Amino acid sequence: MARCDELARVSATPGAIERVYLSPEHARVNRLAAEWMRGIGMSPRQDAAGNQLGRIEPLGGDRDTPALMLGSHLDTVPDAGRFDGIVGVLMALEVVRLLRVGGEQGASGMQRAHVPLPFALEVVAFSDEEGTRFGKALLGSSAAAGQWNDAWWSLTDADGTTLREAFREFGLDPGRIGEAARRPEELVGYLEAHIEQGPELDERGESLAVVSSIASARRFQVVVEGEARHAGGTPYERRRDALLGASEAALAIERICRGEHHVIGTVGQLEAFPGAVNIVPGEARFSLDLRGEFDGTRDAVWSSISRELDEIMGGRRLRWRAREVHSAPAVFCAPLLQDVVREGILSTLPPGADDPAVIFSRAGHDGMAMSSVAEVGMLFLRNPDGISHHPDEAVSLGDVALGIRALAESVLQLAADRA
Amino acid sequence: MARCDELARVSATPGAIERVYLSPEHARVNRLAAEWMRGIGMSPRQDAAGNQLGRIEPLGGDRDTPALMLGSHLDTVPDAGRFDGIVGVLMALEVVRLLRVGGEQGASGMQRAHVPLPFALEVVAFSDEEGTRFGKALLGSSAAAGQWNDAWWSLTDADGTTLREAFREFGLDPGRIGEAARRPEELVGYLEAHIEQGPELDERGESLAVVSSIASARRFQVVVEGEARHAGGTPYERRRDALLGASEAALAIERICRGEHHVIGTVGQLEAFPGAVNIVPGEARFSLDLRGEFDGTRDAVWSSISRELDEIMGGRRLRWRAREVHSAPAVFCAPLLQDVVREGILSTLPPGADDPAVIFSRAGHDGMAMSSVAEVGMLFLRNPDGISHHPDEAVSLGDVALGIRALAESVLQLAADRA
Repeated sequence: MARCDELARVSATPGAIERVYLSPEHARVNRLAAEWMRGIGMSPRQDAAGNQLGRIEPLGGDRDTPALMLGSHLDTVPDAGRFDGIVGVLMALEVVRLLRVGGEQGASGMQRAHVPLPFALEVVAFSDEEGTRFGKALLGSSAAAGQWNDAWWSLTDADGTTLREAFREFGLDPGRIGEAARRPEELVGYLEAHIEQGPELDERGESLAVVSSIASARRFQVVVEGEARHAGGTPYERRRDALLGASEAALAIERICRGEHHVIGTVGQLEAFPGAVNIVPGEARFSLDLRGEFDGTRDAVWSSISRELDEIMGGRRLRWRAREVHSAPAVFCAPLLQDVVREGILSTLPPGADDPAVIFSRAGHDGMAMSSVAEVGMLFLRNPDGISHHPDEAVSLGDVALGIRALAESVLQLAADRA
Repeated sequence: MARCDELARVSATPGAIERVYLSPEHARVNRLAAEWMRGIGMSPRQDAAGNQLGRIEPLGGDRDTPALMLGSHLDTVPDAGRFDGIVGVLMALEVVRLLRVGGEQGASGMQRAHVPLPFALEVVAFSDEEGTRFGKALLGSSAAAGQWNDAWWSLTDADGTTLREAFREFGLDPGRIGEAARRPEELVGYLEAHIEQGPELDERGESLAVVSSIASARRFQVVVEGEARHAGGTPYERRRDALLGASEAALAIERICRGEHHVIGTVGQLEAFPGAVNIVPGEARFSLDLRGEFDGTRDAVWSSISRELDEIMGGRRLRWRAREVHSAPAVFCAPLLQDVVREGILSTLPPGADDPAVIFSRAGHDGMAMSSVAEVGMLFLRNPDGISHHPDEAVSLGDVALGIRALAESVLQLAADRA
């Protein structure tokens, strides 16, 4: 928890937490993480995408030994909390410290630390999960998964700096991005601990949960077109008020998604144009973030929303169009990794306790990218009141301690399974 | 009409029309208007608030002779049409040209132009009706009406320039603003021709209307407060989505106003905060422009809206508050001036024609300010499709010609009445 505070002080914004991809703060937390990795006998390196990695071999292992990757991300949204991503990286380091043998505590100066496992352990601190700086999430884990898209090089930040330029300024070579990509045969799996970013565990009064899958998501930017008119002179019959169409749309989206289990839609941005007190809005724009447990339900809900928008806008003599700006399929956690996480959590509970909660994650995670190159498992920690992406984001010391024990036990279970 | 085009070319924005209070464009159109006034035998002057005035005496009259004031305003909204305000000033000049006697066409160099009326005529081109630059409408006519409020001096434009500084930059002395104020005994009345800014005459297929009153108006800025939450992790039951509350409010305002005769409400601005795709809006802000024929109905509608907002926001566990930013009572045109305008319009129609339309103006006009110092009358011109505050704003040459004849006849009727 002290390290969470230490990382929180590495921020671009005094008094708040903001740490974005390829920034000076990113370099500083990578150096901190590397130091902590070295302190527990791991070999640190920064990959070609700015992800910070640490590795520890099993006895007799070498760099070709397949590794179980543990970790999360160290970047943040603006005005962030202290735990989203961060606590998962620190818990992974603690698991390595608990499991390792030898190293600086060994009798001989020549003895290197190792793990008593049939695989190596790697801890990863992904460099960009939130997508705060360039508007595209999962840049770090996409590079590690070999899913880099060259079109991203021309993405720009708020100052107009391209991703390519930011790479060079950070000291990375864009031409070597492919070197960050991992091969499936190198990885035993990817196992991540993360705060829930929702209230379900808090409501159940439980500390930890097995994650079943990561939500399927689509994002749209919707434009509604009507006609800008003088607010005084234009009677209602003559109005084609784009804002009223958008308002009806936002309420219809809520109604449709509420009627569908495990689908949620959010209109987070809405604006009216020209945006004058005394002009009937001729245009309105809004965003739609749609998430569901399954791609099929999510797509069916979008079809219902589209039909409803046709009806609403038709009735108001408005036109509408939507541009899809993001789409990600649901990612299912591997059954084996779900099992070992369940066993890990059970080991922290009294004998005869009920099975732990199984939650599908409506928030996105690095596992979405990593699933293309490794089996993925996730452990959720209780997040009081579900508050995340906010300075009030919290997690209890007790839950983190339980989570570390559960995660270490999950690793041992996986080792037993593969032995 | 050629002068409308000439004025349209005096703009701060190339390719569009924008002419705001105390700008270089304001100074240029005042000079143009002064030149046109001089050309028809009027004595031009600019008053202490930047209003451009021209005066012509009756035979044997002097500066103490009470005057009928004809006119409108020359300032514009951004991306304006060519007629709103402007056509009323030019029609007033044309009426003076039609009615005057002598002047440069006179036999003697000493003979001055005069009007054969029992009162002087003044043409006024008000300097600020729209309130585009300082957010406060009717600055020019408020000064002429002796209704100047010293609190306005610290109003600022988009560049942070105060109204006081803008006065000095324009060459006006803020300390002398009181000199712009007219006394009731100086004025026979204020008579304005203006485009309707609505579709009623167009729908009736008529050219001209008598204005009965100018709408009662109130404006509010409404803030809705909920809680910003992660869009993925927060189930609907836990959300306090301020944007959905604001959307319901906008639709409720439409429903309530539609149910009330001659009241109209417009939500022209709406924005969600923090305004991120993946965050449930914790705050929403919107504007409400409320207009009605009578103050009482307007206020009753606001009470209904307030009760409805209490219910909507209560149901969504949101808080709301409204700040009133503008309030103007309804202004009724004087019965005598309504009569002479009716007679003026009838003189342009075939004998036995029906009485002309009587319309209440939902848009605000300089007459609202002038009503505190003079009786007010207004003549409306047909505005095709009711499009105003827009480059497509139009008026036909035929309607303007009829309007000039009607306005001149109105002046003669008033003269006959007072003779």
